[in-house]
Amino acid sequence: MSAERFARTPAPPYYAVIFANQRRDGDHGYGATADRMVELAAQQPGYLGIESTRDAAGFGITVSYWESEADIAAWRRNAEHSVARQHGRDEWYEHFELRVAKVERAYGGPAARGEGA
Amino acid sequence: MSAERFARTPAPPYYAVIFANQRRDGDHGYGATADRMVELAAQQPGYLGIESTRDAAGFGITVSYWESEADIAAWRRNAEHSVARQHGRDEWYEHFELRVAKVERAYGGPAARGEGA
Repeated sequence: MSAERFARTPAPPYYAVIFANQRRDGDHGYGATADRMVELAAQQPGYLGIESTRDAAGFGITVSYWESEADIAAWRRNAEHSVARQHGRDEWYEHFELRVAKVERAYGGPAARGEGA
Repeated sequence: MSAERFARTPAPPYYAVIFANQRRDGDHGYGATADRMVELAAQQPGYLGIESTRDAAGFGITVSYWESEADIAAWRRNAEHSVARQHGRDEWYEHFELRVAKVERAYGGPAARGEGA
């Protein structure tokens, strides 16, 4: 059931960082850094989980979940993350859109069949 | 630059429906219905755009953007969408997590380099 691909988030409210991105061709160190960022994010205060996928054309969506906006801001200021973000802008991403959102409602399925949203 | 993969959303606030899902094996009518839902969603009041991707293992994330929670609720009640959602629960998805979130901040890049988040 690939449960490890889904974030085990608590009941709302909490925050989501929605990162949609188009990779450039070639790795240029991306893979190792991406793995490291997932590992490092999980160690930050307020981290709740992450969901991430990318298709063969290099279009990816990563959503990370956080307890508060302050936790997101702190992760943004993390030194190693800041270096990775600059590599992203310079080398890895053709384009990206980042959105910070407050999760207000959530449900899962199919087990939750019939429950309201 | 694959701009068509990104939603051209207005300045926040607006709403996001974050739908993370694991497909089962086999199409079972999924592809045609998914295309139709994208087409139908775009005709609904308050629709702002959609971003969607899925990897080779069948793990997908689709984020649709809407002006208001009322627009999301109306789309949820759409008859054709309701039938598709039931097919999703019965046939297409091994598991999914759906979250409704209010987008509070957004920025894109790399062009927006140096701008705050």
